[in-house]
Amino acid sequence: MSTPLTIALDAMGGDNAPRIVVKGANIARRRYPGVRFQMFGDERRIAPLLRRMPKLRNVISIEHTDQVVSNDAKPSQALRQGRDSSMRRAIEAVRAGTAAGVVSAGNTGALMAMAKVALRTLPRIDRPAMAAVFPSQRSECVMLDLGANVECDADNLIQFAVMGAEFARTVLGLDNPTVGLLNVGTEEVKGHEAVRQAAARLRERQGAFTFHGFVEGDDIAKGTVDVIVSDGFSGNIALKTIEGSVRLYTDFLRKAFKSSLAARLGYLLARRSLNKLRARVDPRRYNGAMFLGLNGIVVKSHGSTDAFGFANAIGVAVDMAANRFNEKIIVELDKTGGDVPPLQAEAAAS
Amino acid sequence: MSTPLTIALDAMGGDNAPRIVVKGANIARRRYPGVRFQMFGDERRIAPLLRRMPKLRNVISIEHTDQVVSNDAKPSQALRQGRDSSMRRAIEAVRAGTAAGVVSAGNTGALMAMAKVALRTLPRIDRPAMAAVFPSQRSECVMLDLGANVECDADNLIQFAVMGAEFARTVLGLDNPTVGLLNVGTEEVKGHEAVRQAAARLRERQGAFTFHGFVEGDDIAKGTVDVIVSDGFSGNIALKTIEGSVRLYTDFLRKAFKSSLAARLGYLLARRSLNKLRARVDPRRYNGAMFLGLNGIVVKSHGSTDAFGFANAIGVAVDMAANRFNEKIIVELDKTGGDVPPLQAEAAAS
Repeated sequence: MSTPLTIALDAMGGDNAPRIVVKGANIARRRYPGVRFQMFGDERRIAPLLRRMPKLRNVISIEHTDQVVSNDAKPSQALRQGRDSSMRRAIEAVRAGTAAGVVSAGNTGALMAMAKVALRTLPRIDRPAMAAVFPSQRSECVMLDLGANVECDADNLIQFAVMGAEFARTVLGLDNPTVGLLNVGTEEVKGHEAVRQAAARLRERQGAFTFHGFVEGDDIAKGTVDVIVSDGFSGNIALKTIEGSVRLYTDFLRKAFKSSLAARLGYLLARRSLNKLRARVDPRRYNGAMFLGLNGIVVKSHGSTDAFGFANAIGVAVDMAANRFNEKIIVELDKTGGDVPPLQAEAAAS
Repeated sequence: MSTPLTIALDAMGGDNAPRIVVKGANIARRRYPGVRFQMFGDERRIAPLLRRMPKLRNVISIEHTDQVVSNDAKPSQALRQGRDSSMRRAIEAVRAGTAAGVVSAGNTGALMAMAKVALRTLPRIDRPAMAAVFPSQRSECVMLDLGANVECDADNLIQFAVMGAEFARTVLGLDNPTVGLLNVGTEEVKGHEAVRQAAARLRERQGAFTFHGFVEGDDIAKGTVDVIVSDGFSGNIALKTIEGSVRLYTDFLRKAFKSSLAARLGYLLARRSLNKLRARVDPRRYNGAMFLGLNGIVVKSHGSTDAFGFANAIGVAVDMAANRFNEKIIVELDKTGGDVPPLQAEAAAS
């Protein structure tokens, strides 16, 4: 029998920690039999929550620490002062190899900074990126970066493309994923220097994915490509714009069903189908942004999610670990030279 | 009696021109009695369409031209070669003062370039911006820039804020509009140099609007502020992401109602309410992006819209002209010095 997969959990991160972390772990325990958890945080607050979860107690260990990274801590501050925090210690478990991945619902900037320092970036990757999976009219797509890198050059974008494609292959199981660069139009002349340069170089590239070209904001939901690459500024705005639009539509829909007696009756009849729809667009289902490009699996849960959402974030970490995403991406980066410059030299050599 | 308001129409712009332009004008004629139209384009194609619209014929004049700006023409090319195009001549009607505004569903880049050259920017405005009105959970908000300026500095963003606020006051009728800067977080340290600088200067500013601070992508739908200011890159991505998300949700909803007999019956009962909902999120209702910051009213219709959508774009131009938006914004810019630098000098002088 192989060693059981262990996931480190930052018990103190997020708006409703440690309650939703413990409850989320309990949901994940049922979903992923054989997975074990290492939970970092205030034992006095965690232990009482575990009292009524005997099965979770069997697969969990608690590592006590008093320190917590606050939500408004700057990354630099968290790095200096948070060495004994639940977040840092959970990350260190991944570095030490006692955990295969870490999940936190805490401060995003701090998590990224600590993960970068503790785990380092993969060879040939300059900057890690935040990625998440989105539902689309065709099936689903992965988008990155979602906010880790506010400014990106062409090299960063190309590295994101390689990582996103590898994620699509390894975790989503797509053979030859298509990759699109998020832009304000599909014509070659559109956009700023970084996207145009990245596109020019991706067009010439041979590899384990097909470069589709530029895509626009509506292509995310359309499912035009399997992987959408963006700088972290626009990617984050797109991510949150989707969340806001879905919430607005859901709100309008609820009001529509309350606006007349006939509509109320209609709702009752269609309820079962509508509940399925709600589950399909439920943001909790897509909770768990991955930090790609690190020597270790780091998943960021939405800070305000509930136990169900947190369990899904754990699921993302389990999937990545079980599929050996990081091992495979290192092989892929070795093969392509990471596509970092000079691509010209590489092309000349081949 | 005052002179009737005249709107110039580019009959040849858009995917289904000139048909939807003529039909759209006919819808607008019923909605805005007293408004006249000057239509630029191929008379041989326009005249037959007008045959069965005697009332429209009474309020329309046709200015014949063979030339059309194609959808894939570069702005520079359109400027050089399109002097006798339907688009350019419609814009020239605004410059000459025979029309109060122009509406086109044609090539966006060409329309912006021609409008800039022919009409010039307003005093103290460096670059025009594309703006549109969006539905929100609170009511509606205006967002700019939506794609005219891929890269923006702090000055541009501040000018957009002044123009957007004036639009909210003049056209949306809001007394002291709130303005937010689109960013990846609400904390002061978030985002790149341009947004941080613009925010710092807007925070110190006294004027006809209240600066709220940074907003995120989900604040568009929430209606957190009346005016959302963004660079054209992220703004365009947000705009199209909204379109895509609404279409995805509508598609999922349609499928949900078809998934069982009970759901189908439910749909029939709720249909009237759902149709109202559909109208509320209908992108055609929000068709018509305004180019703010020009000496003249220019409205861009979506290229693939239908007659109903085109009529709404005409409505935007009529509203702006009737409310004397440009006259008022000049007064406002005069008052504030447009907030263009040096703001420090201005502050010292006061």
